[in-house]
Order: sequence, then structure tokens, then C-alpha cells
Amino acid sequence: MTATAHLREMYKDLAPGLAMVDEEIARALEADHPAISDLCAHVSAYSGKRLRPAVILLISTLFGEASAKIARLGAVVEMIHLATLVHDDVIDEASLRRGKATVSARFGNFESVLLGDIVFARAIHLLSRLGDSTALLRLTRAVSTLCEGEILQNRHRRDVDLAAADYYRIIGAKTAELYGVGAGLAAHLSGATPEAEEAVASWAYELGLAFQIADDGLDLVGSEAEVGKSLGTDLSSGKMTLPLLLLRGQGDPGDLALLRRVMAQPGAADSDRERLLLRLQESGSLDQALQKAVGHVQRGQAAIQPFLSEWACEKLRAVGEFVVQRRQ
Amino acid sequence: MTATAHLREMYKDLAPGLAMVDEEIARALEADHPAISDLCAHVSAYSGKRLRPAVILLISTLFGEASAKIARLGAVVEMIHLATLVHDDVIDEASLRRGKATVSARFGNFESVLLGDIVFARAIHLLSRLGDSTALLRLTRAVSTLCEGEILQNRHRRDVDLAAADYYRIIGAKTAELYGVGAGLAAHLSGATPEAEEAVASWAYELGLAFQIADDGLDLVGSEAEVGKSLGTDLSSGKMTLPLLLLRGQGDPGDLALLRRVMAQPGAADSDRERLLLRLQESGSLDQALQKAVGHVQRGQAAIQPFLSEWACEKLRAVGEFVVQRRQ
Repeated sequence: MTATAHLREMYKDLAPGLAMVDEEIARALEADHPAISDLCAHVSAYSGKRLRPAVILLISTLFGEASAKIARLGAVVEMIHLATLVHDDVIDEASLRRGKATVSARFGNFESVLLGDIVFARAIHLLSRLGDSTALLRLTRAVSTLCEGEILQNRHRRDVDLAAADYYRIIGAKTAELYGVGAGLAAHLSGATPEAEEAVASWAYELGLAFQIADDGLDLVGSEAEVGKSLGTDLSSGKMTLPLLLLRGQGDPGDLALLRRVMAQPGAADSDRERLLLRLQESGSLDQALQKAVGHVQRGQAAIQPFLSEWACEKLRAVGEFVVQRRQ
Repeated sequence: MTATAHLREMYKDLAPGLAMVDEEIARALEADHPAISDLCAHVSAYSGKRLRPAVILLISTLFGEASAKIARLGAVVEMIHLATLVHDDVIDEASLRRGKATVSARFGNFESVLLGDIVFARAIHLLSRLGDSTALLRLTRAVSTLCEGEILQNRHRRDVDLAAADYYRIIGAKTAELYGVGAGLAAHLSGATPEAEEAVASWAYELGLAFQIADDGLDLVGSEAEVGKSLGTDLSSGKMTLPLLLLRGQGDPGDLALLRRVMAQPGAADSDRERLLLRLQESGSLDQALQKAVGHVQRGQAAIQPFLSEWACEKLRAVGEFVVQRRQ
């Protein structure tokens, strides 16, 4: 079976749990006033593949039955993610997200900031109703970490000399942390041993790194129709991603000059951008970045191997393979 | 003793508690990375008169000793307030807040949105450490209500026909709710009876309404040097406040035409704006609005009177008097 087939099967198995997640989100975003419910409906409708709740549900099935508590945790994590997407869109002035107009394009920055706040506040309200103080402490800290990662990323815009360690610090904070914390809590709430919980959290953290690296690759060479959001925004916003770091590392003076020209300002010449994309492919930097993503998935698998059954490891392997192979 | 003298004495009594609140806020906003700690320092430095934590501390003293728990609650409520200020500044493009450059003027909208998120996430993290589920449930709901109030206000921009009920709904949601919830929780955590807790929450809700009405009056006729923030923004942003509603209610066709001209667009003629400000004073609308604020303070006093001692009622009366008399 291919990874996609495995994943399709996984989503089929998780369908009842994901339906519960969707119900929790829809209920949490209900509002009396039409102005608010319209806004909230727009957010919940642009929920995508729901990989975070799927991972959370999947992990819980490794330790027992996926309970209503787990569906609620999945809903909270997805809502936190949605809130950050809404705020990201304000910031990046992106116009397209998951094939739908972004909230900011439709409702303006004013209401997008407030809507993100509402989604976040309601996520934490739902989390409070879970009544688990560990989940509250970890997830609220993860939200702060996530935003700090975004700020650090901003400080390094157009920084062609960004150190690899800082790059990893940024994607760890802005993406991997929420995966790791969510997965660890899923294990925690499902009665896993502390060792298994920590292993699963490491696995999901590595998955998050791989996800972000793959996502950055898609931003460079993906198809907007397939991915369903504006692409190429990393180059124009001056975001140094792994393929660029790897190209830089090869030390070719011509490539370096090209990279500096493209990253220097938003309106780089189209010919330079196209040449850079070509060089990223020719030099093997894009492939190497994807290999790094594969390496993270493997490290994640190595972390769980001593603590989970072979059957459970296989279940998680399919998710990792999907993340590095996805085209959307 | 004048109300201001009463209040000065109150702040003196509360000084040790307020110092604990400040310490809690400073600790909650600590960060390893200089980029983040710089941003956070800017926020904590523009904390103003800290009326919300002062009210919370004061209420706790009516029922017993102000504990570390109460200082933490005060810090959480002030941080929620600060987070909304940071996001408000993004939205309103205000350039001055409490005599300091706003975060958005100094760091840009990008980082202001994220900084507001960080302050909010860390407030809720601190709240989680309080370990009181009632506080979590009520405060996270209050944050959502607050943002919903801001959105409704935005939907009624330049709406000269805004109904009085909608106006009250807006200021209740965006301002009074957090006062009411914070005060109710202060009583709750200090061992008050449910009746006293509810009475105190009503008192603080009315105080919040009075505070907002007075604040809107200051925006029209206050002095920027005294108030320490950009004024006159309500008129240019088309926000209908109580003095305008009251002037409209007098039904003078000339005033109504003037009001519609000023509210129609951001760049109304200076002569029209000045004429409107004059008419708000001449017609008594400004004074009537302030009388309404006084009425709310009185309703709040009436709510506590059956449940609190005369001494306690007097303590709270000074706060109400300050709110309607303040010039800053």
C-alpha cells in the first residue's frame, strides 16, 4: 500500500472521531449575533486536512479507545491552529488560504485580529471544560512559544546569513511545538506511561519539523491549485527556508549573489526568481531539504520504537510518509 | 475628603498588593530571547493606573486578607486588558497610548498582533496556575465577549442611527464584562457568599459602564497631555458614543445634519468638528452623558448595599466617584 493509501485508510478509521472534533469546533464557535456567527462560520469552513486532530485521535487509539475528551483536545488544538492562521493572514496580507478568501481579505484586518482572538479565547474556554490542568499549562505555553517563533522569524526576514540553528529554533517554535504538545497530551489523556508519552511527543515534534520543511518546499515549487493557498510568499517576504540554506551552504558565488538579490526586497526581478527556483532544483538543494524532512520522520520513528508495539509504529509511520510526500 | 483624595488613600492601602501584581506581570512576561523580552517590556511599561487590579484587590479586602491568589487574578485581568490594548492599537492605528509610542507604531502591525497573542497566552497560562476552574471558564468567556463587543462596535461605525440598546450592548461587552467578571472572581476567591459575589459583580459591571461613558467623554473634550493617549479618535473613526446619542435624541434638525456630516467620513471639515463639540457642550449632551455615568455608579452602589457593610460600601463609593470625575 502507498503512504497515501495508508493515510486514506487512517482517515477512514478516524472519521467518527474527526466528526466529533468538527462538532466540538462548530459548537464552540456558535454565536447569537449574526455578525459574529458569520465570521466564525468562515473560519471553521476553511479548516483543512485537520492533520493535528487526526494525529491526536490516532495516538489515542494506540493506547485505548478515542474518548470524547480526546476529540475535545483535538478540537482545541485545531482551533488554536485556526486562530494563528487568521492572525498570520493579517500579517502576511495573503489573499488565499485553503482555496477560500482569507478572513482579512473578506472582513479586513480589524475584524481578523478580533476574530483570531475570539477563536483562541473559545479554544481555551473549551480546554478549561476538559478540566485537565496539565493540558492547560502546556497548551497555553505552546501558544506563547508559537507566537515567539513567528516574531523571531520576522526578525530574520531577508537575513540571508540566518544560522541553521536559528532556522530550526524558529520552525521548532512556530510549528513543531504544537504537534509535540498535542500528541503528548493525547497520550497523557489516554493513560500512556510517562515514557511512552514522551516518546510520542518527540515523534510528533519531529513530524512537525518535517511538515514545516515540506510546506516550505511546496511554497517554492508547489501548485496553487493543489495546495489551495497563495504560494511563493516566502521568497517575496524574505523568509529563509531550508532549501535556500542548503543552496547557500554549497558556496557557489553566483548562487549566493542571486540569492542575495532575490531576498533583498519584495519586488525582485521575475527572471531572478525563476533562475533561483531553477538553481534550487539543479543544485539538489530542494531534494536535500526533503531528505532532511525524511530524516526527521525517521528520528521520530526511532524515538517511539522502544516504547510502542510494531503495529503502533507502523500506524504512525504512514503519517510521516504522507507528510514528506504530500503535494497539498 | 474629595473622591480623588479617597482614591489616593485607597491606592496607598493597596500598594503592597499592586506591587505583587506588578511582579506577577513582570515574571509572566519574562523571555529568554532579547527580541521577545524587549517587546514584552514595552507592554508592561505602558500599564496605566491599573484600575482593574486595584478594584480586584480592594474587593478582596472587603472579605478578608488580599492573598497571593488575588494578586495573581489581578495580574491576569490586567494582562488580558493589556493584550486587548495592543490589538486595539493595531486596529485603530492610534499612535499614542499612555504617553508612550504604541507597540504598533514602534514595532509594526506584524509583531503587535503576535505580541498581543503572547500577552494573552501568558495571562491564561498564569491563570491556569491559579488552579481555579471557575476563574478559567468565566475569564476565557469574558475575553470572547470583549472581542465580540469590539466587532459589533466596528459594524456600527458611522451608524448615526445606532439604537441606545445596541450602544449599551457594545460597551457592556467590550468594557463592563471584564470588570464584572474580575470583581466577581475576587469575591469568589475571597470566600464571599454567592449573593455578595453577585452583588459585587453587578457593582463592577456598572462601574465598567460608567468608566466607558466617562472615557468616551474624555475622547471628545479631554486634554491629551492629561489623558496620555490620542484623543478625538472616536469622531474620526465614526464611533457613536453616548453624548452623540443624546444630542441626536434632542431632535434638532441642524444638529442632526451636523452630526451626519461629521460622522460620514474620516476627514470631516475641522469647522464642522469644532461646531459639533461646541453643540455637545451647549446642548448639555456631554453633561447628560456624565449624569448617566453617575447613574450607573449609583445603581452599582444600590446593588451592593443589601449585602455589604456600610464601611465596605463607602470604600467602593470612592472608586465610582473617581471614575466619573477623572480627567485622565
